[in-house]
Parts: sequence; structure tokens; C-alpha cells
Amino acid sequence: MVGANGPGGAVATGLPVAVDAMGGDRAPDEIVAGAIRASVELGVPVVLVGRPEELGDTGGLEVFPASEVIGMDEDPAQGVRRKKDSSLVRAAEAVRDGRALAMVSAGNTGATMASALLRMGRLKGIIRPAIATPIPQLGSHPTVLLDAGANSECTAAMLVQFAQMGAAYSTARYAVADPTVALLSIGEEKSKGTPLVKETHALLAATAGLRFIGNAEGRDLMHDAPDVVVTDGFTGNVALKTLEGSLRFFMDTLLEILQKNDETKKASEALLPYLAPLAAEFDPDNTGGAVLLGVDGICVISHGSSSAQAIVSAVKVAHDVATGGLVDRLAHAVALS
Amino acid sequence: MVGANGPGGAVATGLPVAVDAMGGDRAPDEIVAGAIRASVELGVPVVLVGRPEELGDTGGLEVFPASEVIGMDEDPAQGVRRKKDSSLVRAAEAVRDGRALAMVSAGNTGATMASALLRMGRLKGIIRPAIATPIPQLGSHPTVLLDAGANSECTAAMLVQFAQMGAAYSTARYAVADPTVALLSIGEEKSKGTPLVKETHALLAATAGLRFIGNAEGRDLMHDAPDVVVTDGFTGNVALKTLEGSLRFFMDTLLEILQKNDETKKASEALLPYLAPLAAEFDPDNTGGAVLLGVDGICVISHGSSSAQAIVSAVKVAHDVATGGLVDRLAHAVALS
Repeated sequence: MVGANGPGGAVATGLPVAVDAMGGDRAPDEIVAGAIRASVELGVPVVLVGRPEELGDTGGLEVFPASEVIGMDEDPAQGVRRKKDSSLVRAAEAVRDGRALAMVSAGNTGATMASALLRMGRLKGIIRPAIATPIPQLGSHPTVLLDAGANSECTAAMLVQFAQMGAAYSTARYAVADPTVALLSIGEEKSKGTPLVKETHALLAATAGLRFIGNAEGRDLMHDAPDVVVTDGFTGNVALKTLEGSLRFFMDTLLEILQKNDETKKASEALLPYLAPLAAEFDPDNTGGAVLLGVDGICVISHGSSSAQAIVSAVKVAHDVATGGLVDRLAHAVALS
Repeated sequence: MVGANGPGGAVATGLPVAVDAMGGDRAPDEIVAGAIRASVELGVPVVLVGRPEELGDTGGLEVFPASEVIGMDEDPAQGVRRKKDSSLVRAAEAVRDGRALAMVSAGNTGATMASALLRMGRLKGIIRPAIATPIPQLGSHPTVLLDAGANSECTAAMLVQFAQMGAAYSTARYAVADPTVALLSIGEEKSKGTPLVKETHALLAATAGLRFIGNAEGRDLMHDAPDVVVTDGFTGNVALKTLEGSLRFFMDTLLEILQKNDETKKASEALLPYLAPLAAEFDPDNTGGAVLLGVDGICVISHGSSSAQAIVSAVKVAHDVATGGLVDRLAHAVALS
């Protein structure tokens, strides 16, 4: 079968990004609005996937019809198996069949992964795909954390592939020439951590073509962070949500203080020029979503409460990495060792 | 052997808290200063453990001599085995022998745990001790997170005991009558997480005397947090350090903004009355350190960069939980099931 990458890996750049119009807490309105904005603002062809009668004015965007919807809380495997005409399954099929360059969804994360995996298939040689999530870094490119939740249980061989894919992704998405890669653990020493972490540490140190700099700790995720941080999907998901939670706590608490009284409200005016860009940098609507690495196609996972802006960001990422040849880069990176 | 709790569990309140004078990045000066302040400000008897000739003026505090020091980066097991006259080992022996009410150290965490475990022994019925760490909550008592790093690998039976000990500790230290207990996972549903997490979830739901409220996620640690959050020592350590790192990042970033120019400096004056208490609440020097739960005695672990203030806080915690009968409460909690 000839997919979006075409024979020989050339990317057919005229293809649209397929946006799952039915997925997300704010679907379909915000999703459709975001898709329209993406096509106008980015000049990227976009197609919507979903129930045409529920999408309202699509601003001229084409719709790939799909009559079913996999709910946000539905069992992913069951949903994909039973709902063959769901927007998620149809979006993944569009990528597989070369009718779309990439897919974007803010829907059920598990079902998004399952759709991509089952319809696009795994990249050759990949044991398991992983979710790569950007962690914003002030004044620098984001750090790539993976796996952010695709695989609760991992083997050392899987984690080595995550490291290779994460490095290739950092290069493809952020133009980092020779990305540093660290393993998330509970101390700098290679003797620290679970047996899995120790085994992985030894393997990573012996993997050619990888700039492995040793263990990183939770506190390194926001300060002098490595370009890529590798961990199993359970730990990665806990770390990421801990980070999100503390960020929200801090922002909420600060906003509350700034609203206390006339004096603090006046103070907030002086601080706004500096706080606003900071808030924007850490706004999940701007980071562009996570990417499922290791499937034979591009699948961008936007957060469940995605706004139109989040969809614009996600379409941009999908288009950029697809036209940048990410899938080929991943296959190449893993084939090196 | 009759320990600090005496026959029948009565606590000999006249006993001093033993402070490891040699442990910590700022030892011995800050540690000695903190011990002196604790004895004066809290009216709690304190004894120092270490090399008398290196401690300077102890302000009249008694010194239990110990000629050796286990370094911050030394292998914990080897250190404890080889350095039988180290301050850590002698402090743990003082508790074991009923010459001290509790021990406090800001030194090598692994060696502190090993000293306490090997000299005081495990509490009857406890599979493995765990480190319980307070996570400050605005306007409420701290959440107890355990295990924060004692055991990289855990069984479900261990995690159930951590839940029981954590609940007893929340009651003993923060007077929480019927603490809520949650299991750290990557989704609310009991189907989420590793096989260990799923097995533990089922066991916790079936454990009598425990107010188990289900899974918690990383984002719940700072907002509407349960009273007790249970996890393995690897995940707990990663989550805790992620939290510490992000809070430090935000504080540092905010301070930098407040120093930008005359306008922001003026703004900072209006905000200071609200920011200062917030910073104080999250200052690790004020939280009082972590407690090793499950050994037959009280062992408080203060962070490595502890100041005199951190030692004052740690001595207060050690004294409070020891005189509050924590060891008996833990034994009782675990014996219930």
C-alpha cells in the first residue's frame, strides 16, 4: 500500500491534514472553528472528519463523512473495534490510504492511539509507539518527554527506541542538531532507580548515535532540561500531570493575588507585559499537542479541552512534521542500532 | 529491649531529640545552630550526635560522640556497615536504646534510612518502611505522599500498608480525623495504570478501616488533594521532585519579573504581603521534613540543604509525633487488617 509518504518516502505536500471534528470536550464547534482558522492562517489544506450534519458552516472545508463518534470516556479498544465508521477510525484510514497528510484529534486519547496503531500500523522495527509531549522551556525550545502515557509497562528495549525516536523528533520539530537525551530516574547515579531503569541506562550508554547524558530527575524537567527525557508511560504521565497541576496552581494563585485589592490590581498592570508572554508560553493551547511516534503516519493528539487555537497549533505541528519527513526520520533512527 | 516508647508504649517525654550534627550540605554549623534554636524556641530537649571537636559552641547542648561521618554521596549500605561509629548509626542506636526520643538528620537519605532500619528494626508486621513527605496545601493541612523514595519496587501488599501508615500519620501529625486516601495513577478509572496499581486498587477498596477514595492523578497533588496519596517510591520520588522543580521555577521566574525595572519593583511592594506567606508555606525549610514510617522509632529526614530553620522544623515534627505516640499508632493501623 502506498501511504501519505508515497513510494520512496517522498511526502505528498498537497494533501490535507485530517481533523477529527467530533473529538474533544468542545467538539464540534471549537474544533471546526480551529480547522477553518488553520486553513486560512497557515495556508495549510485541512479536511474535517465527522457527521456533516452536525458541523454547521465549515467555511468551505471538505468533510470526510463518518457517522459514529467514540466518546471521551469510552473504552478505546472496544470503541475502535465496534465503531468502524467513527471519525477517529476514518481519520486514521485517510492517512493510511494517502488521502490525508496527517490526523489531528482532541478526542479520547486511548482511542486516538488505537485508531492510528490499528489503521496505519506500526513503523517497521518499532516494538511499541509512544506519546511524545513538549514541555515548554523559557527562552529555549521545548523538551520532548516520552512516553507520556501510551504504555504503562515498558521494557528496556522499548525505552531505547523511545530515546531514538525522541531524538529524531526533537531534530525534526525543533531543529535541534544533536539532542541531549536523559533517562528519568530518582538520582543522577546509574545505580539509582528500578531494575528497568538501570537496565535501560546501560543499554542507552551503549547505543550508537545517541547523545545520552545519563539520568535526569523530576526537578530537571523545568530547569536546564535535556532536549529529550525518556521514561515509561506511567511515570511520564504522572510527571506531566504533576507539572500541569503545579503550573495551574501557581497561575491561579498568582491571579487571585493580583485581584486582591486596588493596589494589587495596579501592580498587575505593571507586571502584565512580562506575565502575559509567560502565560502564553505555558498555555497548552499553544504548545501544539503531543505526537504519537512509531506508527506509519502522523497522528497529533491535542488535549481534551482544546480550543480553536489549540487546533490551529496542532494542525501546524501535524503539517510541519509530516512535510519534514518525520516518519522516515523515525524509521531511520531506529534502524541505526 | 525497652526503647523510647518504654514498656506498654508509654512515651518517655523527658528524652531528647537526637540531631545528626554531621549530616547535610551545611553541616555542622547550620545544624548545630538549628539544634540550639530548637531547644530554646521549642523548649524541647535536644542532643547533638557527632565529632565534638568539630561542633564549636553547642550552646550547652549535650553531645553523643561519634567519630565517623557517612558522606552525602557514599553508598548507604556500605556506609552503615563499615562506619559503626558514625553519627547516623549512633543517633539510631540512641533511639533504639531509649536514650533519645527520636532522630533527625539532613544527611545521606539512604544511609539515614539504613541506619534507622538496621538499628531500630522494623515495626512488627511491616513489610518495608516508607518515606512520608508533606505536600503543602494552601489554606489546609499538607497532603502526605508516600512512598517518596525508600522503595523503588513495591508489591501491592506494601502499598496497602503505606496507605494504612499514611492515614495514621495524617491523623497523628495533622489531626485529620478520617483521612481520605488515594492511589496515584494515570486516570480516575480503576482500569488505569500498571498491573501493580490495578491490583493495589482492588486491595485498597477491600481494606477495612481505610477511607479509600480511588485513584488520584499528578494534577491532583496541588489542588483539592486527598489527605494521603500512596504510590511506589520511584513514582513518588519523580512526582515530588517534579513538583519541587516546577515551584522553584515559578518562584524564580516571578522574582526575576519583579526585579525587571522600577515599575515592577514598585509592584512587588504591593504584592509582598501576599507573596511572602505563600513563599513561606512552600519553603522546604518550614515543612518539617519527611518521616520514615515503619521502623520501631522516630526518624525524621530533613532535606540535604537544610538551614538552621529546617532543623528547628524537623525537631518540632520529631518531638510532636514521638510524644503523640506515632509508632504505636502505626503498629495499630497495620494490625487492623
